[in-house]
Order: sequence, then structure tokens, then C-alpha cells
Amino acid sequence: MELLKQRIRRDGIVKGNDVLKVDGFLNHQMDVALFEEIGREFLRRFEGCGVNKILTIEASGIGIACITAQSFHCPVVFAKKSQTKNIAGQVYSTKVESFTHGRVYDVMVSRQYLGPEDTVLIIDDFLANGAALEGLIHLVEQAGARLAGAGVVIEKAFQPGGGRIRARGIRVEALARIKSMSEEKGVEFAD
Amino acid sequence: MELLKQRIRRDGIVKGNDVLKVDGFLNHQMDVALFEEIGREFLRRFEGCGVNKILTIEASGIGIACITAQSFHCPVVFAKKSQTKNIAGQVYSTKVESFTHGRVYDVMVSRQYLGPEDTVLIIDDFLANGAALEGLIHLVEQAGARLAGAGVVIEKAFQPGGGRIRARGIRVEALARIKSMSEEKGVEFAD
Repeated sequence: MELLKQRIRRDGIVKGNDVLKVDGFLNHQMDVALFEEIGREFLRRFEGCGVNKILTIEASGIGIACITAQSFHCPVVFAKKSQTKNIAGQVYSTKVESFTHGRVYDVMVSRQYLGPEDTVLIIDDFLANGAALEGLIHLVEQAGARLAGAGVVIEKAFQPGGGRIRARGIRVEALARIKSMSEEKGVEFAD
Repeated sequence: MELLKQRIRRDGIVKGNDVLKVDGFLNHQMDVALFEEIGREFLRRFEGCGVNKILTIEASGIGIACITAQSFHCPVVFAKKSQTKNIAGQVYSTKVESFTHGRVYDVMVSRQYLGPEDTVLIIDDFLANGAALEGLIHLVEQAGARLAGAGVVIEKAFQPGGGRIRARGIRVEALARIKSMSEEKGVEFAD
């Protein structure tokens, strides 16, 4: 998605060789006009897949998921990083390791909002190590729902998550795939 | 907002005398078509106030804020519940007590995304004790920004937050104000 790559080149800030800060438009301040273009692009890629529910994870996936859901005319469910006690049996849950925050979260979705009747598109802002995405896939599996695939805005293609998940036969669409990056040379895209 | 009140009556679940679960359409599963109506109603109430930025707090405010921002044609900034170490001076920060989760969060916004040039509309899903809203107001004050007011989807008018904040001269618009509720009688609205 050319518009997105241009925006990453213009406003993304590379720290070291593996941190890309896109705080200015994607995951702290959010450019909703850009999100509308992102949502339309996800629809273009997943149109006709029968998606009736979008699944994301708090917090930074929620805005992108909601605006994408407008294109799909379906609701969003966001997986919660659990802080409150949940009564066993009422939720699907899994563990997700956050490399950014150096901890493991319990992540859960109420059984009421995901089930065998659903065809799910997973949406998230970043794909790197793949932990969050694998957690969401695990929730979809627990629900017995059909998985149409996953749409991520930015994939760090030099990290192993995308390759590992695609090797399972799961469709993963990334709107910008980064091959490498450095403070000196900036971002190099994979395609 | 009549459509919202109908939805609360139909799908809201009252627990005890002070918990209203609206998980099915507002803050776990999210009905984005309803959010579009909510966004248009916030625009109707705050049109002409010069709003150029919407501020919310993770996680459940983000979806409503993003779709409301489409009506205002402005970006959203969401305050983060701080988990990573922040370098002093780069962020505005405040403390917010969560009654639901029984803990106090550090909440922060990068100084880059809020400043004296901004006219801010705060958006959140619930107003009850007012702790989250007061935290967001404190961030706006630190930034030296102008505060147009706050728009909340549901106000528990029997709890003290709304009254206390309005007494400071701050405009607070709630789309559904609940006077009282109980498991037997359901929800009674204030207007």
C-alpha cells in the first residue's frame, strides 16, 4: 500500500535496527483518514471471504479494527489483556508474551462474542514476533470459528512471526512489509 | 440519544445496583454502525467549538473516539496506561484510579501530540466516579490546550463524577444518563 509506505518513510522514526516508531499516525496519535484507506485496502484483499467479525487486541489495534469494520459492515471484538478475575468457562483465553513490555499477558474473549458461526478476520497494527497474532488465532480456534486470515498494517518481515504463521497455511496480509531498517538508511520495504 | 437508550434497555445487563454490562455493543464487542450514530451526535453537540483533536484513554474509548473523529475530521490521541519506562519531560502524565480494577494507573500522553494550539474534545465510553475523565482533563491542562468539553456515551448520573466535573465549569455531554438501576427494574434514565 503505497500511501502507507510513503507515510512510514515520512513520519516513521527508526531506533536501532528493529524499533520503528509510528506514534504520530498509527498507535498513539491516530490518523483516521489514513485508517479509512487502510480499511478499504483490507476489504479489497479479503472481500468475498465471508468475514462477519473482526477480532483485534487492545489497545492499538482497536482503532484500525473499528474503521476497517465499517468497510466490512460487521462488528469488532477486541481481546482483553486480563486484569479482572474471569469465571472459568465464560471466556476463551490464552497467554501472549509481549517483547516490548517484557511480560506475559492473559488475553481473553467472552464466549458470547465468538463461536462456530463466525468467519473471523484478525486485524492488528504490527506483526513482528507473531506472539499477539498467534494468541488471537488460538482464541479463534477455541471458538471453533473459521479464520479468513489476518490483516496487519506493518510487518517486520525480518522477524520470524509472519513466516511462521504463513507456514501453518494461514493467510496473512501486511500492507507494508519491512525488509530491514537502520537509523542511517531508514526503512527498506520488502516489495 | 434515543437509539442508544433503546439499545441499553434491550442489550444492557444490570448487576446489583451499580454495574451495567454493555459488552455486547460498546466495550468488548463493538457495534460500529451504532458508533457512527454516536459520532454524529457528538458532532451535533460540539459543532462550531473548534475541535481539532480528540483525546481518549485506552482501551474501550478508542473505537468510539476514532469513529467520532471521522465526523470531526481530526486525529485522535489516546492516553496510555503506562507500562514502559518513560523519559521525564517527553510526556504529560497523571494518575488515574480504576474502581473496576482496584488499582491506580499512570496515564500518559506524549508532548508531541498535545499542545497550546489544540482545542480538545475528550471522548470516553463511561462516566461514573469521574477518575478517568479528570485524569484526561489534567493532561489537557498540562498541555496548555483549550478544552471544548467531554463527550461520554453513558453517564451513571447517580455517581458523583459528572456533577463534580460540571461544577468546575467544564461542559460534559452524556448521550445516555442513568438515574438509577437495579436487576429487578432495569435501567431508569435521567431525562
